[in-house]
Amino acid sequence: MAMDFAPLFRKDLPPPADPWTGFPEYNFTGGHQDPDSIPIEEISAAVTRVLAREGGTLATYHLESGPLGYFPLREYIAAKLSERAGLHCDAGQVLVTSGSLQALDLANAVFLEPGDTVIVEAQTYAGTLSRLRRCGVDWIGIGIDDEGLRTDELATALEALEGRKVRPKYIYTIPTVQNPTGTVMSRERRLELLRIAGKYNVPIFEDDCYADLLWDGERPPALRALDESGSVFYCGSFSKTLAPAMRVGYVVADWPVLSRMLSMKFDGGSGGLEQMVIAEYASAHFDAHVNALNKTLKAKCDAIVSALREHFGAAAEFRVPRGGIFIWVTLPDAVDTSRLAEVALAEGVAINPGAEWSADPQRGRHSLRLCFGNPSIETIREGIARLAKICHRETGIPALSANVAQPPIPLASG
Amino acid sequence: MAMDFAPLFRKDLPPPADPWTGFPEYNFTGGHQDPDSIPIEEISAAVTRVLAREGGTLATYHLESGPLGYFPLREYIAAKLSERAGLHCDAGQVLVTSGSLQALDLANAVFLEPGDTVIVEAQTYAGTLSRLRRCGVDWIGIGIDDEGLRTDELATALEALEGRKVRPKYIYTIPTVQNPTGTVMSRERRLELLRIAGKYNVPIFEDDCYADLLWDGERPPALRALDESGSVFYCGSFSKTLAPAMRVGYVVADWPVLSRMLSMKFDGGSGGLEQMVIAEYASAHFDAHVNALNKTLKAKCDAIVSALREHFGAAAEFRVPRGGIFIWVTLPDAVDTSRLAEVALAEGVAINPGAEWSADPQRGRHSLRLCFGNPSIETIREGIARLAKICHRETGIPALSANVAQPPIPLASG
Repeated sequence: MAMDFAPLFRKDLPPPADPWTGFPEYNFTGGHQDPDSIPIEEISAAVTRVLAREGGTLATYHLESGPLGYFPLREYIAAKLSERAGLHCDAGQVLVTSGSLQALDLANAVFLEPGDTVIVEAQTYAGTLSRLRRCGVDWIGIGIDDEGLRTDELATALEALEGRKVRPKYIYTIPTVQNPTGTVMSRERRLELLRIAGKYNVPIFEDDCYADLLWDGERPPALRALDESGSVFYCGSFSKTLAPAMRVGYVVADWPVLSRMLSMKFDGGSGGLEQMVIAEYASAHFDAHVNALNKTLKAKCDAIVSALREHFGAAAEFRVPRGGIFIWVTLPDAVDTSRLAEVALAEGVAINPGAEWSADPQRGRHSLRLCFGNPSIETIREGIARLAKICHRETGIPALSANVAQPPIPLASG
Repeated sequence: MAMDFAPLFRKDLPPPADPWTGFPEYNFTGGHQDPDSIPIEEISAAVTRVLAREGGTLATYHLESGPLGYFPLREYIAAKLSERAGLHCDAGQVLVTSGSLQALDLANAVFLEPGDTVIVEAQTYAGTLSRLRRCGVDWIGIGIDDEGLRTDELATALEALEGRKVRPKYIYTIPTVQNPTGTVMSRERRLELLRIAGKYNVPIFEDDCYADLLWDGERPPALRALDESGSVFYCGSFSKTLAPAMRVGYVVADWPVLSRMLSMKFDGGSGGLEQMVIAEYASAHFDAHVNALNKTLKAKCDAIVSALREHFGAAAEFRVPRGGIFIWVTLPDAVDTSRLAEVALAEGVAINPGAEWSADPQRGRHSLRLCFGNPSIETIREGIARLAKICHRETGIPALSANVAQPPIPLASG
């Protein structure tokens, strides 16, 4: 006689999780990394070194560094941001988090109440949208072009909100290697964004998780680096550059914001061993590691771009990313990517349907996000070929595959 | 011109955090461990071994084990619980969490809405009470005696609630090495607790974080091990036995509950490296490590007990703990321990005031929790002597110190 828990659950829970059944054969979802790029030996050596030196500090919560996180890691993050993003801060402005997801959670915990409004990019990180949904918050999506977030649209939106006496809690942007579009906001656009945000007195939440994976072109300074009004708070992560399964991200903010986030961080600190290891490893090896990783990722990006061209031809529209681990592809209106994702998954190909990555799900329903960091080049080629085949069978698109015309097939009814 | 964030914050935020200023000289707070007991070399060796074997899996979220957590760790936890707690489960019933704090958060996320009622022990973990307060939940505290939670009081409380048509969401108990009282619930009392909870159809949330630190007497089976109705969900942790700064805890529950918790776990997984290392280390060394640790902790406990007797004499009432890292001390009514904690901290001695560890803060205001796992025996002796001196100066209690009568001092006014 098992207890029936159902009447005891909160009323507003999401559906229960399904049991995990393993990764699909062709996995183009998730921010996974290239397994061969994990610097196993250097990480092992870093662990041995840092534990021999100060392993006893694992006996205390926060490693004798206080709740902001392991002090040498915060110092390293400050040095890295200064060098790579033009962002000058000190260790007292850095809060180490359990991945950048906790940074999102802390920002939302500090700022958001049901009924609030935030600004996001028209295509944006699905995990941000699902969080905002759970917070009961309204969002407004601002379009993106080759220069990044469209500041003309932003100005119009903020003026309209001001007319309704609505002050958005923040503008959430991923300016460098935007997720999912891979765009990089130009320096001019950054300055314009700061000017407009300042005019309407709205903070900017800069999510810079992918910026170290910019492999092509010069990295513009972070928004927080260009800001003179103290209106930008910033987050980053080692998940994308080092290892997703190590959960180490960070927030950079001034004390009035950081002290509020800290007072909402009830976790007894983020993982101490992972913080120690990353600090020890990264201060010696990060730059060389990321340079090599970016070459690997660029080769995978080239592979997916050429596979898309080969198998989807003109049916697939996309910008070639300048960095990162994903590409945003738009198919003709006849393709509903949520439906395609379902069918493809049943045949071993996982994709992110565009609706989940769009401020307006309707506008994203012909697009998809394809992650290429984890699969091998061979797997990428096979997977895209298989996806094209499934898509063709289900929708008649692409009409051509592998430069060979496919026989016409009626639109699937189901 | 810095942006003023104050009008943008949520209305119900706690006060901002204060900057961290380091640990006090005599720190009797926090679940810290003995620094010399951290098995540094074995952990280093475990890291090297596990990374060489499967380090590449760090490239994927969840280490190719799915969102429940690293599979070999879940298998180890199941084996450990079977052997040490009589609790038989399989890896599919184990969810790895970022410390047991996340287990508390997930249970609350799944079950609690504002206005709900839960049952707790009259003295209980402060982090549980502060979480319940944030959830807007009412709690009822049930007294503890030498056998553990008083099931007669529980029956009375549940009957009264039933009369008001209130079904509590869960009964939260720390049955083995209770925090803060150090009591161990007897087997008979466990069976009676299960019987009463079953009669009123209320689940039990068993927090077993300290049970491996039972050094004296036989460990009774876990409540979940004795339960036949599927009404107990369970959490544990490696923080107390291995290292608090490694954030690895776990929940054991049946799928109807576990799948709900999993659907509220939005963190991209708990730290993968820490999970790998603990699985690799613990399966070879856990039992020997805990045996040695328990000898160390018992010696520290003996030291604090003898220091309390020496410096506080009959003024300090306490049960001698049978395990764990803390002792619950009650002083005469003239001593307000919240005030004492404040004064003592300014003089380098940190204690947990009893009000924060009591379901009814008023009833806890003459008690305090003293943690002895982290300070050395020398530091324990000095710290308790200093605490007695401060307490005497402030309150006239203890009247005798070090078996020498203190000169009478009037009660402090401030």
